[in-house]
Amino acid sequence: MNALLKLVEHGQSYWIDNLTRRMITSGELECRVRREGLRGVTSNPQIFQKAITGTKDYDEQIENLVGGGRPCPDVREIYEALVTTDIRNACDILRPVYDDTSGLDGYVSLEVSPHLAHYTEASIEQARHLFRLVDRPNLFIKIPGTLAGLPAIEELLFEGINVNITLLFSVERYEAVAEAYLRALERRREAGLPLDEVASVASFFLSRIDVLTDELLRHRITPEVTRRPEPDPKTMLGKSAIANAKLAYQSFKRIIESDRWKALEDKGARVQRMLWASTSTKNPAYSDVMYVEPLIGPNTVNTMPEKTIDAFADHGAVRDTIEEGLDEANAVMNGLAKLGIDFGLVTAQLENEGVQKFIEPYDALMASLADKCQKYSNRRSVDLLQKVARELRRDVVTMTTEAGSGHPTSSLSCADIVAALFFHEMRWDPTDPSARDVDTFVLSKGHAAPILWAALHQSGACHESLTSLRKLGSTFEGHPTPTNPWVKVATGSLGQGLAAANGIALANRLDGIPGRVYCLLGDGECSEGSVWEAAQFASLNKLSGLVAIVDVNGLGQTGPTPYGHRTEVFARRFQSFGWSTIEIDGHDIEALLDALYRARKGGPTAIIAKTEKGRGVSFLEGVHGWHGKALDREAMEKALRELGETGVHMTVEPRRLGQIRRSESEPVPPLKPGYRPGEKVATRKGFGIALEKLGESMPDLVVLDGDVSNSTYTEFFARRYPKRFFQSYIAEQNLVGTALGLAVSGKVPVAATFACFLSRAYDFIRMAGHSRPPHLVLCGSHAGVSIGEDGPSQMGLEDLAMFRALAGSTVLYPCDAVSAERLTELAVKTPGIVYLRTTRPSTPVIYSEAEDFPIGGSKVLRSGGNDRFTVVAAGITVHDALAAHDSLKQRGISVRVIDAYSVKPLDVATLEQAARETQGIVVVEDHWRDGGLGDAVAAALNSTVPVHRLAVSKEPRSGTMEQLLERHGISRRAIEEAILAFG
Amino acid sequence: MNALLKLVEHGQSYWIDNLTRRMITSGELECRVRREGLRGVTSNPQIFQKAITGTKDYDEQIENLVGGGRPCPDVREIYEALVTTDIRNACDILRPVYDDTSGLDGYVSLEVSPHLAHYTEASIEQARHLFRLVDRPNLFIKIPGTLAGLPAIEELLFEGINVNITLLFSVERYEAVAEAYLRALERRREAGLPLDEVASVASFFLSRIDVLTDELLRHRITPEVTRRPEPDPKTMLGKSAIANAKLAYQSFKRIIESDRWKALEDKGARVQRMLWASTSTKNPAYSDVMYVEPLIGPNTVNTMPEKTIDAFADHGAVRDTIEEGLDEANAVMNGLAKLGIDFGLVTAQLENEGVQKFIEPYDALMASLADKCQKYSNRRSVDLLQKVARELRRDVVTMTTEAGSGHPTSSLSCADIVAALFFHEMRWDPTDPSARDVDTFVLSKGHAAPILWAALHQSGACHESLTSLRKLGSTFEGHPTPTNPWVKVATGSLGQGLAAANGIALANRLDGIPGRVYCLLGDGECSEGSVWEAAQFASLNKLSGLVAIVDVNGLGQTGPTPYGHRTEVFARRFQSFGWSTIEIDGHDIEALLDALYRARKGGPTAIIAKTEKGRGVSFLEGVHGWHGKALDREAMEKALRELGETGVHMTVEPRRLGQIRRSESEPVPPLKPGYRPGEKVATRKGFGIALEKLGESMPDLVVLDGDVSNSTYTEFFARRYPKRFFQSYIAEQNLVGTALGLAVSGKVPVAATFACFLSRAYDFIRMAGHSRPPHLVLCGSHAGVSIGEDGPSQMGLEDLAMFRALAGSTVLYPCDAVSAERLTELAVKTPGIVYLRTTRPSTPVIYSEAEDFPIGGSKVLRSGGNDRFTVVAAGITVHDALAAHDSLKQRGISVRVIDAYSVKPLDVATLEQAARETQGIVVVEDHWRDGGLGDAVAAALNSTVPVHRLAVSKEPRSGTMEQLLERHGISRRAIEEAILAFG
Repeated sequence: MNALLKLVEHGQSYWIDNLTRRMITSGELECRVRREGLRGVTSNPQIFQKAITGTKDYDEQIENLVGGGRPCPDVREIYEALVTTDIRNACDILRPVYDDTSGLDGYVSLEVSPHLAHYTEASIEQARHLFRLVDRPNLFIKIPGTLAGLPAIEELLFEGINVNITLLFSVERYEAVAEAYLRALERRREAGLPLDEVASVASFFLSRIDVLTDELLRHRITPEVTRRPEPDPKTMLGKSAIANAKLAYQSFKRIIESDRWKALEDKGARVQRMLWASTSTKNPAYSDVMYVEPLIGPNTVNTMPEKTIDAFADHGAVRDTIEEGLDEANAVMNGLAKLGIDFGLVTAQLENEGVQKFIEPYDALMASLADKCQKYSNRRSVDLLQKVARELRRDVVTMTTEAGSGHPTSSLSCADIVAALFFHEMRWDPTDPSARDVDTFVLSKGHAAPILWAALHQSGACHESLTSLRKLGSTFEGHPTPTNPWVKVATGSLGQGLAAANGIALANRLDGIPGRVYCLLGDGECSEGSVWEAAQFASLNKLSGLVAIVDVNGLGQTGPTPYGHRTEVFARRFQSFGWSTIEIDGHDIEALLDALYRARKGGPTAIIAKTEKGRGVSFLEGVHGWHGKALDREAMEKALRELGETGVHMTVEPRRLGQIRRSESEPVPPLKPGYRPGEKVATRKGFGIALEKLGESMPDLVVLDGDVSNSTYTEFFARRYPKRFFQSYIAEQNLVGTALGLAVSGKVPVAATFACFLSRAYDFIRMAGHSRPPHLVLCGSHAGVSIGEDGPSQMGLEDLAMFRALAGSTVLYPCDAVSAERLTELAVKTPGIVYLRTTRPSTPVIYSEAEDFPIGGSKVLRSGGNDRFTVVAAGITVHDALAAHDSLKQRGISVRVIDAYSVKPLDVATLEQAARETQGIVVVEDHWRDGGLGDAVAAALNSTVPVHRLAVSKEPRSGTMEQLLERHGISRRAIEEAILAFG
Repeated sequence: MNALLKLVEHGQSYWIDNLTRRMITSGELECRVRREGLRGVTSNPQIFQKAITGTKDYDEQIENLVGGGRPCPDVREIYEALVTTDIRNACDILRPVYDDTSGLDGYVSLEVSPHLAHYTEASIEQARHLFRLVDRPNLFIKIPGTLAGLPAIEELLFEGINVNITLLFSVERYEAVAEAYLRALERRREAGLPLDEVASVASFFLSRIDVLTDELLRHRITPEVTRRPEPDPKTMLGKSAIANAKLAYQSFKRIIESDRWKALEDKGARVQRMLWASTSTKNPAYSDVMYVEPLIGPNTVNTMPEKTIDAFADHGAVRDTIEEGLDEANAVMNGLAKLGIDFGLVTAQLENEGVQKFIEPYDALMASLADKCQKYSNRRSVDLLQKVARELRRDVVTMTTEAGSGHPTSSLSCADIVAALFFHEMRWDPTDPSARDVDTFVLSKGHAAPILWAALHQSGACHESLTSLRKLGSTFEGHPTPTNPWVKVATGSLGQGLAAANGIALANRLDGIPGRVYCLLGDGECSEGSVWEAAQFASLNKLSGLVAIVDVNGLGQTGPTPYGHRTEVFARRFQSFGWSTIEIDGHDIEALLDALYRARKGGPTAIIAKTEKGRGVSFLEGVHGWHGKALDREAMEKALRELGETGVHMTVEPRRLGQIRRSESEPVPPLKPGYRPGEKVATRKGFGIALEKLGESMPDLVVLDGDVSNSTYTEFFARRYPKRFFQSYIAEQNLVGTALGLAVSGKVPVAATFACFLSRAYDFIRMAGHSRPPHLVLCGSHAGVSIGEDGPSQMGLEDLAMFRALAGSTVLYPCDAVSAERLTELAVKTPGIVYLRTTRPSTPVIYSEAEDFPIGGSKVLRSGGNDRFTVVAAGITVHDALAAHDSLKQRGISVRVIDAYSVKPLDVATLEQAARETQGIVVVEDHWRDGGLGDAVAAALNSTVPVHRLAVSKEPRSGTMEQLLERHGISRRAIEEAILAFG
């Protein structure tokens, strides 16, 4: 007979500290009970976590529990259902033991949630609930012996619910627990309830005590002191747990020997046995049965893991040991005190750690259950979503044939993705396109517009007829534009969606909206560098709610895309840019749902979906030559026959996040520039100072800069409002694209870099124009040759042409710090795209603080009754114009000087007046000759007076500002010559 | 006594088939010779490859051989020196055997290059050379018994050079070899030369024969046939080699028993022994001494590897066996024939494979020696290059302080890289900046210009004073521009260099120039997406000569770069874009040289160099806040003291590749458009057709397209001249950047995409302007709202403004297929940047084939003596203007119609004439209102007549062309109304 079977002769039951479904279904547990003398089972959250997440044994039950419904049932309900099933079955297996021992043994323990360790009432309620749910007399509810646990224990025992008090480390707490038991029994007696129907064990923990005290002892073991401490800490290693337990047992004995107990016992009360827990040896240097052998004696239980059971069966020695070595036990506990080890602190720490040790696996289990729920819940949606995707495909084919053009095949490849998003994963509200507390979708591959229109139409968000596609007046345009209210940013120039998605995600973060942003890209557009600028920004800014989905259909417009279906290429790239990636079959709805679910965490995430262009229609699928071509009617009919009718029409119920935190805008007080006249301050600095001031009263003002904030002077804002400043590094396309995303999400973004580098983002600026943002300010500093020594690559010479060309844009160009501040103030309040041009060198302040600068206005700086000529200048050239005025005045020539700070809209009235009143106009600007202020003035004046344009017309060089203004004919001298030439 | 020592009693010597320096220096070889009866050594290229590349035993000698010189000595010379050293030493160790056996034994064999197996004369020469070089009588030169080898063998033997004939597989060839020996001896006898001073062995190969014949036999062993072949192939496995060798020995015996031989032997001739080679057992199922035991007999040698020697010593059986089993041997050979195995083919194949088996390790050894040479050669350069780098740093500090601005710290971080490139790795010619048969350097991080100027100055390429930096007139500008003749493309807008490098590399490939292109990037600029567009293009186009060097100094303008010194981030990214990568310390010259050497192969390669900004000056190194700031004089003096003076002034000797393959341009005959008047052909198609025609007579014409070649119609060219067409996918920045690189390398590039998408590359276009390429044509198709249904994102509406603004640009805009062809023809011949705007819809041909379209011209399409008004149109609007003319004419209003196909330069004379002769001008264009033709005309006319601009001024929608022209007021009707409004 092995050692285990002998234990019972010495009054000790052994239980097992593990329970899994496999143990039950395989017959292992039954075998242990019947043949190996096992008399009880304990469980805890950690044990269930291992069992449930480590095996597939629970999956079928989980799937059944999830049912067809959505949203998923509460994971705690699922947890309860899973564990009570096991516990109930285990109770039934142990029932014969329970019956044979008249309720002394044969128990199974189930722990309440570790999150309740400090909640008395909740513990009581959950214990009642679990006891009812399992509905077996041989069930122990485990309640930790925390301070909050004590009254719960008493109450539950009073109510006749068996309690295994767990997490006991100290003798004192054990005694309190025993007291609770006594009181509960006494209350039952008073209430006339039977005493023999309630049981309890007090679980006293062992090995963890040694782990911690040994650590403390080792702190005291050092060769670096000559005088050894007393007692020698070395000799005490691995002894505290046993010593403590033996002393606890003495308390137990005192209690059961008390008259108080005897009185209860006489009424049938069962003894509250001591249960030794945490009995596996942690230190491999120690005996593997060290927590079993010395603690054998009457009225005890030892609950062991398999390994310890096996070890003890193999070589455990059995005799009554529990009362041996009590002197040593006392010596050990005294010794700890002598060495300065406060055992009270030890046990308190262990109690805390014990709670934490269960919370962690419990939470992990809940998370894992949530994952599984989602998966099964998804599975039930697959069939329906497949049908939805089929309907979307039918719509795509029909509407493009009707339109006679469009991109059906590019839409078919992503039909499943769009179905999964719009009809399952995305939380959105088809009744409210302006809602912000929702997930957002950005169709970066804009040519797939038909699939978007189909989804909006199917879901009930848009009621327009799909056959209006591409027809004048329809919001279903060839590529998405905000004419359709569901479109946040116009797309169709590829590679731009992700940058906008960055901006939307940033705005969500600023406003506390937990929405996700889904951006659907094509594989072909991943050749655009802007995608990688955006990818870098997203990971640097930890935009975890951003999900890029790449529709890798492998075919571009003119042939295969560079990497065909090699999804791993895209995965490696996104990874190298700091993203999580998931590669899937983009037509497998279940895989899609799973990927989307996984993408909820740990983002930014790129889902790389392998798809077929033209998917769903045999003669289109993966066939080159169909890009951007609609089917004729005959082919359409064939396609529709293949796709079949599903009869499904799935609308989307509104799902909103309900969370949004926005600061109310206060009225913005007018800025007070506060410069001295003549003070030399660069306009770029004036801009920076104004931004910082505006930041205070405009909570929606956000600023982006491309690693030149100490040149553009956005650094003032950045330092003051770091959360509203976004360092965009040297990546101007993403700078503008992200600003646009912010702009369409209610922010007022100001994006700044050198004027010349805004040309890097011209396509983004162009598309921003088509996106019609409420506010978007772009500031270009270092305009013109006046920057001097850095040379032509750093000179903004095309910027006025670029921004003037944009329909509806505003172009402002201050010449001094006052106008710079004023125009910055105006810029952030002016609707649409506003371009603000600033200058590198310092220029003298010429305006008073009170000066007003309306959009579309100008300033006549010098004027007299007999002005013969007019000089129109802006920015840096205003100062040369004034100098020329003075100089010409000395020569008797009177010249009107106009500061055309509003380059667009231009102050036509003032210019026309000058045209009428003077004999010639010289326009002088630090910009290429064509497309700038000169063109603007010439076109506006429309013929009444000669207009002479002074501007940069030959390749600039490095040199001083003065040299360059002179060299390029835009200096004071050049203006004078031009005026004299009229003469 | 072990079996080996007994062999000699049976007339067989055993040799070892291995030789390493370690065997010699350790005494192992001597021990084998003195104690274990070893009587000879053979070697071959494979053996030396293992010895030389697998150990460090040769490295010291290699380093000495490399010496201080550059370029490295020929690796074959080094090889010879290494092996003849070993061979000579081995000969000396075996000399006692040679002497003791009177020259019968004690030989060491050295093989000629395996590349000479089929070259008689070269084999003879090399054998003579090696025999002289080793200068030992007991040397065998190994010559393969190929057909080309036979006469060489005879000649060498005649000359008294001992020959070991190797690679013998067939009896027939063995007999031919024996005949060569006989003839050589007979010729010596005739020439009166002694016969006892020349020796030979015939090496007959064994195991390889079994490997191959067994394979062929196994093809014939199958359970799937019922009737077994006869003989049973199974029974013949592993028998052919021995059978063949035994039969060869019978030939040997016949020869030495012949009278002819006896006559020679009488004169002292030594017998040409049979040598058994390839005697290690390959098939583990066979005995490990199977190629030794059965072939023991007089006048034989068995040359074995160590393993076989050990096996034979251990368990070999020795007796006279060579003449046993001759019947079986014949049966085996007959059996092979019966089974259809042609043994002649077997031996021929083995001979070929035998040669290959030596070529491979020989070549690998040469490559490995080249690597080692380079490494040692580099090491000798390190000290000097460090000093050069120090001098460059001194120059950088001095010149920026002198200039009072610039980027010293960004230059200091890459001083070592630049020193390694310009003064060591790059093959270039400081006397000729226009040379193309050289390596090219592109400074993508243009703000580090000072380090480039310093290198050009130090190397003697530029004689301008460095203190002219950033001064007006100096070619040492703030950022590199082609004002300095060494600068290919202007840089300073970051992230553009690599695309240009792509173009230069493509041009090199087209012209057969084996030059490499080095592009130096900063880590900060790797945030630019354009870098990754270029990286993708380089790997897709396998630009193996392209080397990107990233100067990861970890500091940007405003603070740390996004990834600091994490070079692995860049390495992973470049890898994910298909590049080889090498991460190094960018200040370790030796590591740099090694990386540059490795980058010569397997590119494109990115060298990711970890550096410190401000390196070399303690108070600048890695210190933030120094970006773009010059030191003051005091700080400069301190920096110079730290850097110290080296006294080194290293000029660079010209190194040119001397290879260039260019097709001569023929005179381009004028195109013959050949359309019918009124035929409807889109101008984009006319452009495509013209390109294809021009391709024939313009070998330098190259075309690039961004995956829209079937829309732009560059597909015609692509199909006809695929090698001159570069698919650039959806990456317009790289499209333009690569075109620029081609343009500055003598090509005439035409890059095409939708007009709107050229806005994506505006910064590249801007910088191309500053780069002043001889020719660069950009074609934008799908201009304006006339594209119709695709909607605003696809409409080029800013392109005229963009291109007009560029100083020196030409902007052309055809309205029909004839003018499209003519203007395409002109575009490729017009210097500088030419923009050609084409239209999507088909338009009627209005011009005759003979029509001429000068740049700066226009066409007056309708004109009469009494024109009241003028309509100026271009492109699509020309047709509406003509229609308006007709309609107004019916109403009695005479209107002049001008086709302003040359938007820039504009035909001012014709316009001024119209202004003088008519009362109002309407300009009508399919473009945004500002910056286009209207502005151009208004600015040009300068006041003489009212100019009314019709252009697109509100946001377009999807719709038909006709609807949109109407909606945006640029239709026939709108023109009429505008004319009528003049009243």
